[in-house]
Amino acid sequence: MDWVPGRIPVFECLRARKRTAHKLLVLQGAKGLEDLRAAAGGIPIVECPRSELDRILPDAVHQGVLLQADPVPVHNADAWTRSEFPSDCIVVALDGVQDPHNFGAIVRSAAACGARAVLFGKDRAAPITPVAVKSAAGGMEYVDLVQAANLVRSLDALKKAGFWVAALEADARQLLWEADLTGRVVLLIGGEGKGIRRLAAERCDFHLRIPLTGPITSLNASISAAVALAECQRQRNAKPMAKE
Amino acid sequence: MDWVPGRIPVFECLRARKRTAHKLLVLQGAKGLEDLRAAAGGIPIVECPRSELDRILPDAVHQGVLLQADPVPVHNADAWTRSEFPSDCIVVALDGVQDPHNFGAIVRSAAACGARAVLFGKDRAAPITPVAVKSAAGGMEYVDLVQAANLVRSLDALKKAGFWVAALEADARQLLWEADLTGRVVLLIGGEGKGIRRLAAERCDFHLRIPLTGPITSLNASISAAVALAECQRQRNAKPMAKE
Repeated sequence: MDWVPGRIPVFECLRARKRTAHKLLVLQGAKGLEDLRAAAGGIPIVECPRSELDRILPDAVHQGVLLQADPVPVHNADAWTRSEFPSDCIVVALDGVQDPHNFGAIVRSAAACGARAVLFGKDRAAPITPVAVKSAAGGMEYVDLVQAANLVRSLDALKKAGFWVAALEADARQLLWEADLTGRVVLLIGGEGKGIRRLAAERCDFHLRIPLTGPITSLNASISAAVALAECQRQRNAKPMAKE
Repeated sequence: MDWVPGRIPVFECLRARKRTAHKLLVLQGAKGLEDLRAAAGGIPIVECPRSELDRILPDAVHQGVLLQADPVPVHNADAWTRSEFPSDCIVVALDGVQDPHNFGAIVRSAAACGARAVLFGKDRAAPITPVAVKSAAGGMEYVDLVQAANLVRSLDALKKAGFWVAALEADARQLLWEADLTGRVVLLIGGEGKGIRRLAAERCDFHLRIPLTGPITSLNASISAAVALAECQRQRNAKPMAKE
C-alpha cells in the first residue's frame, strides 16, 4: 500500500482511477478540500492532526492531504513493448536518472505533453517514492510507468515497433530541432552527471543537443526532457494536418 | 557571509570570482577534489568531519564541500534597468516564484541559455538561500540577479529600453513559437499555482502558451522558463546570421 501526498497528486489519483484508493487523511480544519472530498467517492475520510500526517510521510510535502492507495502499477518492459502504439507515440526513456524530484518532474512533463510512457531501467533508476509522486503532480496516474530489466533490449524492441530513438546529449553535433520528431519517437535522457551509457547511446538513431550559449554548460535532466518534449509538440503543431 | 554548498556551485563560485571567497570546508578524506582545491587559490582549506558540514547547512545537499563567501550580489532594478543592453539580450522575470528549488533551477537554465539576468519582485519571491544556490549549479555566479521593489515598474523600464515582454500563460491564445523572440526579450514566468498577476500581465506585448496535449494541464515554473529559453535559442540559431 502506498501513501500519495499533496492536493494535486491526490486529486489526480482519485480522478484517474488507475489504482484503488482506500482512505483519505485530511488535516483537521483544512479548507478548500471540497473537490477532493467529492472525488473521494465512498472511501473513508479521516481528519488527522498535523503531527500524524508528518509522521506518516516525514520527507514529502503533504499539504494537509494523504491518500492511501494501491501502489502505482509498473509495467514490465518486455510485455509492454509488444503493445499497439499510435503513429505519433512519444516515450521518454531514462538512463540513470536517480533523483526522485527529477524523476517525478519528468513524469509530470511527459503527462502534460501527451507522452505515452516513461521507461526506466532496474539499476541506476529513481524508485517511485512519495517524493517522486508529489513532484509528478498527478502525472504518475496517467503515464505508463515501464521498468526494463535491460534498457538496451527495450530500446531495440521499440525500434522494431517503429520508433526512432533520439538521445539528448550535451556534446552531440545535431541540434534538437534539426531532427524529425513527429512520428513514433523515444526521447532518451541521461542521468545526473553521468549521461547516457555507451551501449544505450549506440542504439540511438539521432544524437541531439540543446545548444547552450552561456557559461553554464549543462541542463538538469528534467529540464532536458521537457525541452525535448516541447520540441515534439512544436513539430506536431507545425504539421499542416495538426489541429490547433 | 554566505555558505555555498555542493561541488559544482562551489567550483563555479571560485571560477567566476564575482564575489570574494573566504574559506573552503571539505569533508575529511573526500576524493576527487583536485579541481576545487586548485580553484581555491590562496584561501584556507579546512578538513571537517561530516557532522560539522551537516550542522552548518542542515537543509542543503553539500556533497562534502562548503564554501564561505560574500553574499551573491543582488542588483537594484531601478539602477540596473538603466544599463546598456545588447540587441539580443534575454531577461527572465519572475512573478511570485517562491520555491527555492524552482528559483535555483531557473537561474541555472538562464545561465546555460545565455540570459543576462533573472529579475524578481521583493514580495512573493524566493530568497537566495543555500538550497537555491545548490539548485542553480553555479548559475548564480554568472547571471545578474535583479530585485525589483515594483516588478511592473521594472517591466516598464525594460520596455523603454527596447525589450519586448512575453508572458508565459497556460491559457494564452498564441503559441510560444508563433512570437518573434530574437531581439531584446523579457520572458515573464508566473509562480507556482497563482500565475502572473493582472497588473504585470497587462504590461506584456505577447501572451504565449506551451500547448499541452496530455491529461496534466500545467507545467512546473522552472520547466516553463526552460522551454521558453530553449525556444529563444532555437529562433536565434535559425537566423541566417547566427553562428553555430
